[in-house]
Amino acid sequence: MKPQIKIILSNFFFEYETPRQVLVRNKKVAVACRIIQMGVLGYIIGWVFMYEKGYHAIDTAIGSVFTKMKGVSLTNISGEERIWDAADFVFPEQGASSFVVMTNYIATVGQQQDKCPELPDGKNKCTTDKDCDKGKYKRTGNGQMTGRCISNTSTCEIYSWCPVEDDRQIPDPAILLTSENYTLFIKNSITFPHFNVVRSNLVESVNQSYINTCLYHPKTDPLCPIFRLGDIVELSGFSFSEIARLGGAIGLLIDWDCNLDLSIRHCEPKYEFYGLYGTGRNDKEKPSLGYNFRYAKYYVEKGVEKRTLMKVFGVRIDIIVNGRAGKFDIIPTLTAIGSGVGIFGVATVVCDLLLLHFVTKKDFYKNMKFKHTEIPEEVSVFLFCFCF
Amino acid sequence: MKPQIKIILSNFFFEYETPRQVLVRNKKVAVACRIIQMGVLGYIIGWVFMYEKGYHAIDTAIGSVFTKMKGVSLTNISGEERIWDAADFVFPEQGASSFVVMTNYIATVGQQQDKCPELPDGKNKCTTDKDCDKGKYKRTGNGQMTGRCISNTSTCEIYSWCPVEDDRQIPDPAILLTSENYTLFIKNSITFPHFNVVRSNLVESVNQSYINTCLYHPKTDPLCPIFRLGDIVELSGFSFSEIARLGGAIGLLIDWDCNLDLSIRHCEPKYEFYGLYGTGRNDKEKPSLGYNFRYAKYYVEKGVEKRTLMKVFGVRIDIIVNGRAGKFDIIPTLTAIGSGVGIFGVATVVCDLLLLHFVTKKDFYKNMKFKHTEIPEEVSVFLFCFCF
Amino acid sequence: MKPQIKIILSNFFFEYETPRQVLVRNKKVAVACRIIQMGVLGYIIGWVFMYEKGYHAIDTAIGSVFTKMKGVSLTNISGEERIWDAADFVFPEQGASSFVVMTNYIATVGQQQDKCPELPDGKNKCTTDKDCDKGKYKRTGNGQMTGRCISNTSTCEIYSWCPVEDDRQIPDPAILLTSENYTLFIKNSITFPHFNVVRSNLVESVNQSYINTCLYHPKTDPLCPIFRLGDIVELSGFSFSEIARLGGAIGLLIDWDCNLDLSIRHCEPKYEFYGLYGTGRNDKEKPSLGYNFRYAKYYVEKGVEKRTLMKVFGVRIDIIVNGRAGKFDIIPTLTAIGSGVGIFGVATVVCDLLLLHFVTKKDFYKNMKFKHTEIPEEVSVFLFCFCF
Repeated sequence: MKPQIKIILSNFFFEYETPRQVLVRNKKVAVACRIIQMGVLGYIIGWVFMYEKGYHAIDTAIGSVFTKMKGVSLTNISGEERIWDAADFVFPEQGASSFVVMTNYIATVGQQQDKCPELPDGKNKCTTDKDCDKGKYKRTGNGQMTGRCISNTSTCEIYSWCPVEDDRQIPDPAILLTSENYTLFIKNSITFPHFNVVRSNLVESVNQSYINTCLYHPKTDPLCPIFRLGDIVELSGFSFSEIARLGGAIGLLIDWDCNLDLSIRHCEPKYEFYGLYGTGRNDKEKPSLGYNFRYAKYYVEKGVEKRTLMKVFGVRIDIIVNGRAGKFDIIPTLTAIGSGVGIFGVATVVCDLLLLHFVTKKDFYKNMKFKHTEIPEEVSVFLFCFCF
Repeated sequence: MKPQIKIILSNFFFEYETPRQVLVRNKKVAVACRIIQMGVLGYIIGWVFMYEKGYHAIDTAIGSVFTKMKGVSLTNISGEERIWDAADFVFPEQGASSFVVMTNYIATVGQQQDKCPELPDGKNKCTTDKDCDKGKYKRTGNGQMTGRCISNTSTCEIYSWCPVEDDRQIPDPAILLTSENYTLFIKNSITFPHFNVVRSNLVESVNQSYINTCLYHPKTDPLCPIFRLGDIVELSGFSFSEIARLGGAIGLLIDWDCNLDLSIRHCEPKYEFYGLYGTGRNDKEKPSLGYNFRYAKYYVEKGVEKRTLMKVFGVRIDIIVNGRAGKFDIIPTLTAIGSGVGIFGVATVVCDLLLLHFVTKKDFYKNMKFKHTEIPEEVSVFLFCFCF
Repeated sequence: MKPQIKIILSNFFFEYETPRQVLVRNKKVAVACRIIQMGVLGYIIGWVFMYEKGYHAIDTAIGSVFTKMKGVSLTNISGEERIWDAADFVFPEQGASSFVVMTNYIATVGQQQDKCPELPDGKNKCTTDKDCDKGKYKRTGNGQMTGRCISNTSTCEIYSWCPVEDDRQIPDPAILLTSENYTLFIKNSITFPHFNVVRSNLVESVNQSYINTCLYHPKTDPLCPIFRLGDIVELSGFSFSEIARLGGAIGLLIDWDCNLDLSIRHCEPKYEFYGLYGTGRNDKEKPSLGYNFRYAKYYVEKGVEKRTLMKVFGVRIDIIVNGRAGKFDIIPTLTAIGSGVGIFGVATVVCDLLLLHFVTKKDFYKNMKFKHTEIPEEVSVFLFCFCF
């Protein structure tokens, strides 16, 4: 090793540089400065670290939801009694996280492919055959026009599933009003892939005997995974009789906010409910109300294919899992500290501004803080005289 | 309080340290340094703050989607007319965010549990009974082999739903080609849980009268929530006649990018369309084309359970909500400032490198900047002589 | 321009300040300090940059999944043979990302609206008519009580779909045990909207001929998109015979972790399997086992509406896409560097602490580092004498 390199290395290892500083003894500036610095320190420790948990690495959950509705309703339509159970009123049936509970319906029994007049609902009027373009479809219509205008109804004849569904009047009150007492059981499993943590909403305190008897209540039973449909509707701000008649959509948010530095037992779900584009409070803001869909049950009668068309009004429940876990991690901790030191630097800059611009003896302090490489003439002359 | 502690405290509060600095009067270095510093400042202010909105806390949306298809098609297969409406061609029926619109199909009517020969499609050939392992299933087969080879078709006899579906020929053109004119209505509600903001795609300008008449168009009607199926297909880069025949999948992205510092009215959705693994442009890259599935309608005829098997080709639409909102927040702001000050420090380091290594008078500047704790011998002797 | 401003500007542009520093020649402190600094540097470069890729902008994927089950089973229940194909055992049928494969069932054929006694399963006992509140529903019951107690079964008579389903005994072994050999084909398309990258799980090496013959295996065929149901169950930690009998839920995670700085060909999916709230290993921790749901097939027999109620036990598969891509970006790079410089500042602070408090000559160093604005009296007197 050459001597030159040796010196550089020894300088590097045995010598270190530290900034020279002036200790400014000025009460006003010093106090202001300390307050700023303590504010910054308090913000970093109190807010970033304690409140926002800046030392946490964050992971979002991957969730899986399984639902099961239970309940029975008896309806009595013009003397005909009929019982409805979960297999009849839940769509789809396999326990998905988004499903519809039928609360009201308009059934059109025995539709078959045929020609029949359009529904006289005011949108499909005609006076002569010319109003009914043969082979065309109207956007508001239910089938292909045959070109004839039926005088009885003053509507076009169409080729369609006949008779056409008449949904001008929605049953009021809702046919399945007792659906209020149905219960919904939710199983939710979440995974934090980054932390390799799996967790279920059936937490430690929710055992089999508790499940058999409990019913969710926001205050008294916030962890019970069994919900009464009426409660869900009320908690999301709807009136049950209204939503049952016209349908509506509800978001059921399962919110997990877990601090994995603590015991996993404290990682518990929180259930939240909110109404979505339904017959709710903000009617004026939401131009499109209600929730309905149609489905058909097909059958063959005397060799002819027929169907029963159901226009189903119901409560649609969308279960949404929002999971977030934090755990101490060295990277975000050091990033937060690094940022904090940076902000400390800002505090020093502010203090210096005060010192150098807003203090009476500012020129004195400037002189203390700064050294000029180009020495002003008179001073250098003076120094020259003095020194030599 | 002991005097010792009193002094330390008074020192701490009434004295503050600020780094001593050299003001280097060197045009080249100073200009270079100022340019670097201004670049850093410009980057921090212009890019981090203005463009990337580094002062924003970010939240991602939780969304809920409800869809409704409308439309009617008339088909004519060998003289038999048949009308199809939404209850017939949408799967599943309840308005989910991912659904299939049937555009083509192969119907196998009247299947029942029986023995029949396999389809002679080249994959299931046999010449003698030995080729048909009794009780085994072929991966390409439709049922359990009985052990016989049927000479008519040169295929194994199987126990299966008979007759076996013959899907060797896909109807061309697609049977429900008029599905192009079906319309899709989308209701989308999003929530930013962190900011407690709920928003619907039926924004202020989309009122009931507009919805009754509008049709989405990327330029003229970008907020209309009613889409023509043919438009969706074209906008995602497919040809309708192709996708209708073989099926395909389309992603419909509802993109929300909201700045909640502004009025909520400016938080509007943007609809984007892209083709997924379908019969699209990149045929060569995607080895698996088309989209189809089978479903069965069961019925009982003369005491025998039968089914109609439908192989459905269709347009599958996956509606995906991607929401992101930003709002001023003190934490990311200070983090960005802290990082900025840190980067400023990098600028100073670069300037010093220039000053101490690439300037002719570098030894002079080094002397100004650094003070040695171990004073080199000759200098100390000199100072000693001089001072005393 | 006034001369005053001119001077300020010329000072600003031609002069720059750099901190004055002391070069401390103290082996212990210097070595300690260098080690700390090198640790910080190593952490920043090695961990933040190399391992955690701090220079990456991160985007999460939007994914779309399409599935297709294939397989055939023959069952033989009391001599009656029946074949099951995909249209019979997959719910829902249209290839969604979350679906159920039926492996076991309890069929209740020919239910119709009627009066019949409750199931004598111990939960619905009665001794006299008084135990059966007319018009009420029991939470554990299947219908509305008529008010009579049937002596034969010692249970209340109810108005319900009759006969009532008897699910006291679950078929053992599972009826569709051969479902183990069903295959699942997955098409997954992901989009990174921020980077405008689209990618499918049918990557370059997965071509048509490979798909025709391959079967997923975690070691030998980790990219094959065709999975055997039995393999999925085993890989997620279940025993197939158990899960087939009682049902269970499995999460199939498609994990994309892409470095877009490299070729897109290296962006490949990883399939992971985990059991969710099923009949798995952690039986004791999970109070609720199994997976089942009911659905009904309706039909009309001699003018009476009837239904076949199926209680379906099955494997529910939730396919979850978790995509994350990183790409070099200037913002996170500079943020990381800025934080790094900040942490470097922490190192300097630690070194100074060592120097000023834990070193024998600490007062000497303090004197070197700090300059007092208020000069202590005796020194100033001395200087005064000396200078003038």
